[in-house]
Amino acid sequence: MKKSLKEIAEQIGGEIVGDASIEIEGVAGIEEARKGEITFISDIKHLPLLETTQASAVIVSREVKEAKVPLIQVENPYLAFSQVMRILIPHEKPSEGIHSSAIVSKGVDLGKKVSVGAHSVIEEKARIGNNTIIYPLVYIGKGSRVGKDCIIYPQVMIKEEVEIGNRVIIHSGAVIGSDGFGYIPHEGKQHKVPQIGKVVIEDDVEIGANVTIDRATLGKTWIKSGVKIDNLVQIAHNVVIGEDSVIVAQVGISGSTEIGKGVTLAGQAGVVGHIKIGDGAIVGGQAGVLKSVPSNTIVSGYPARPHTQAKKIEASILRLPELHKLVRKLKKRIEELEKKKEESD
Amino acid sequence: MKKSLKEIAEQIGGEIVGDASIEIEGVAGIEEARKGEITFISDIKHLPLLETTQASAVIVSREVKEAKVPLIQVENPYLAFSQVMRILIPHEKPSEGIHSSAIVSKGVDLGKKVSVGAHSVIEEKARIGNNTIIYPLVYIGKGSRVGKDCIIYPQVMIKEEVEIGNRVIIHSGAVIGSDGFGYIPHEGKQHKVPQIGKVVIEDDVEIGANVTIDRATLGKTWIKSGVKIDNLVQIAHNVVIGEDSVIVAQVGISGSTEIGKGVTLAGQAGVVGHIKIGDGAIVGGQAGVLKSVPSNTIVSGYPARPHTQAKKIEASILRLPELHKLVRKLKKRIEELEKKKEESD
Amino acid sequence: MKKSLKEIAEQIGGEIVGDASIEIEGVAGIEEARKGEITFISDIKHLPLLETTQASAVIVSREVKEAKVPLIQVENPYLAFSQVMRILIPHEKPSEGIHSSAIVSKGVDLGKKVSVGAHSVIEEKARIGNNTIIYPLVYIGKGSRVGKDCIIYPQVMIKEEVEIGNRVIIHSGAVIGSDGFGYIPHEGKQHKVPQIGKVVIEDDVEIGANVTIDRATLGKTWIKSGVKIDNLVQIAHNVVIGEDSVIVAQVGISGSTEIGKGVTLAGQAGVVGHIKIGDGAIVGGQAGVLKSVPSNTIVSGYPARPHTQAKKIEASILRLPELHKLVRKLKKRIEELEKKKEESD
Repeated sequence: MKKSLKEIAEQIGGEIVGDASIEIEGVAGIEEARKGEITFISDIKHLPLLETTQASAVIVSREVKEAKVPLIQVENPYLAFSQVMRILIPHEKPSEGIHSSAIVSKGVDLGKKVSVGAHSVIEEKARIGNNTIIYPLVYIGKGSRVGKDCIIYPQVMIKEEVEIGNRVIIHSGAVIGSDGFGYIPHEGKQHKVPQIGKVVIEDDVEIGANVTIDRATLGKTWIKSGVKIDNLVQIAHNVVIGEDSVIVAQVGISGSTEIGKGVTLAGQAGVVGHIKIGDGAIVGGQAGVLKSVPSNTIVSGYPARPHTQAKKIEASILRLPELHKLVRKLKKRIEELEKKKEESD
Repeated sequence: MKKSLKEIAEQIGGEIVGDASIEIEGVAGIEEARKGEITFISDIKHLPLLETTQASAVIVSREVKEAKVPLIQVENPYLAFSQVMRILIPHEKPSEGIHSSAIVSKGVDLGKKVSVGAHSVIEEKARIGNNTIIYPLVYIGKGSRVGKDCIIYPQVMIKEEVEIGNRVIIHSGAVIGSDGFGYIPHEGKQHKVPQIGKVVIEDDVEIGANVTIDRATLGKTWIKSGVKIDNLVQIAHNVVIGEDSVIVAQVGISGSTEIGKGVTLAGQAGVVGHIKIGDGAIVGGQAGVLKSVPSNTIVSGYPARPHTQAKKIEASILRLPELHKLVRKLKKRIEELEKKKEESD
Repeated sequence: MKKSLKEIAEQIGGEIVGDASIEIEGVAGIEEARKGEITFISDIKHLPLLETTQASAVIVSREVKEAKVPLIQVENPYLAFSQVMRILIPHEKPSEGIHSSAIVSKGVDLGKKVSVGAHSVIEEKARIGNNTIIYPLVYIGKGSRVGKDCIIYPQVMIKEEVEIGNRVIIHSGAVIGSDGFGYIPHEGKQHKVPQIGKVVIEDDVEIGANVTIDRATLGKTWIKSGVKIDNLVQIAHNVVIGEDSVIVAQVGISGSTEIGKGVTLAGQAGVVGHIKIGDGAIVGGQAGVLKSVPSNTIVSGYPARPHTQAKKIEASILRLPELHKLVRKLKKRIEELEKKKEESD
């Protein structure tokens, strides 16, 4: 799509410095951008690149007053740039309607302008909201609800009795609502505990590829609004994740644990069951969290400890071989002193 | 489904204390349960909740003699409760028969009362046992066998020549029988070793969502009876897992390793190839197991060590910054002593 | 397939010692092999098994001059054996052509001898090269290109604008080209950054089951020729992986990181974003790599350090409880000396 710089500035609420009439038809990073493309600078240390960029326009913060290329001044250049990406390269929607090969059971409640892709299967009593896109090869189980303006990518699996809000994006291979992992050991065998609870996913959640979110044993597994989940994350039964938390790839959260609001769990971190991670906490990559974490705390390492303590310990460990040596030497000096003492006595 | 307390008590082999005629139609946890629902107490510390629960009946251990609500006394309350869950909320079976959109190749041997869901694909010479449910969008490869009373959830992939026993449950996205990861480095390139072995999964195994179990190079990858595998677990070629072992989410087991019977591998643990984990061993969460583990041993940490040793080391590490300080001080005192000694000589 | 030993030796460029006319119809390990099967010895310590093997022939290195069974002498016995595996048990191709239930959009460019399996979906403007096999239930997005002689196993998801070279193998459940995980936090909410870049996968790459490879924000996520990726690996947006590198199961590589040529990342390792792993480097299992790694270096542990240093530190840690004890004792001896000194003054 082609837009004048003026149109773009209006849509993102910015002020133009330079020629507002130039036409923009693409986006790129500051070093890759060419004629006809717009780029951005959000870090002041990249300002010198303003001199050398081939871009036709640059989105900058309001402190940047002029340059040899036209500028759009905004408050948050990266945020504005990401809006421009969506303006110039809109998400390409598949065509509306139900593909002839899709199997939509009777009693399914489809909203307006819904798209159901080839070979998708929607079971009885499921409800799909307006404008939602179901790509091909998706499975939606009996009685599940998907809200409006959602995007469900190919090969997603949503089991029965799952509730999904509005503007939710679910990437391929994600499995929502499979059985929680619950057994009772009895006489050497593991006896399955039926998993008859559900999964609730609120508005504006995004779920990555090949993520697994188990249904609750009783009650619900609950992903609150605005949560963003990266690929290959495991969320066990009865977990609760608070609003706007960010769960990075390959994290695992064990059963019944409660994650607060605005929490970040960095990649490959693991959290044991039945604990609480307070609002605004940050858990480092690969950390192993074995007990509850207070709000607004940063923890890291295994077992996870407050980050400053973990760093101090880590530094101590680095100096450990030399400590061993030092103690050996001190021991000799003590022996020496003891010997002399004895002699002088 | 509605049942009298009497009927329920008979089915789980318990004794009623109180009114046996009341009707029960649901299950819930002790704090959430309402009128018409049954709940349970398995931990003695929750006994005070007997006073406040809204449940119509409570399953308890035989030590609990009476309460203001009707009781069912049993040996193992949680086990009995899980049986009641299945009685009151039976697994809802899809209808029998082959969906018109399923592709079942000629020569496939289907048992009685089999269900094959929409868009599933079953290749030549596969055999499916009686009462087995194949949900939609499943793939079953050439010559594979699935036993009787199995549940294969949507989007499971079973490649060719895989043997699956009876009462096996496989959750969505699991991939059974893909190639093992085997290459021979030669002149800077990796040359693929064909993976022509198979996968054998015995009776009563449950396999979580998005699990990967690779076929053997030669011979078989072998999951013995009663093994329970959580989501996103990786099982490499030629691995053997002994009876009734429990493999928690995101564990990785490298090639040719043998896991004994009744072993627990906690979440995100990793086990190197070509070692043995003895019967009844427990491997802690995120542990990195680099060598064989004797039977009935608990190991944890990286590299995994006996748990008591690991705990001792961990405690030592916590006190390490203070040890550094102490040694520095001792050094000064030694210098002091040495100086005085010198002066007095 | 049945072959004479002579035919086999010719195909793998080896010399026969013994009866060249015998017929071989299968392969097995040296201890499992029976009459009619060929096996191999690559490790000199297994040579005694030459006396007891039931195999009809053994592939050995040129140093082995004779045995009671016929031999084929070659330079690299395991490599030769793996070639024999492919000769005797060729990969069974599904039949050519497009299955009647597959949905191939108009404008798709299909090469010669392509196979498209049941219920697969190929969107507009995709291009599939000669001899490529698309198994059932695969999704290939708009405008994507798959080269020639590729194998795409059931339930693979390839999103739009993905470029895949020749002789690429992709195992089931892999998701190629889903959105990178990019958000801008603003006023307490996470705002999605559109991911409009692509994924490029070069020739001879193999991608394991349930792997996720995200598309770039801008530009490309780039897997260079010969790279081998095991199951359940996460590759974030804008990652570059150099030629012939080996990425073992459950590894996670964060955004914009560059992995060099011939690198090995062992199982469950994690690599932070925006760093470089030099050519030929080896990263140990479960390592947490927080900063760039020079070429031809081995690192391990968390945080990852040069392996020799990590081993030294690990040994120091093992002796830590005893160091604590020693220091306590030394402290007492110093106090003793100080007391005596005082008394003698």
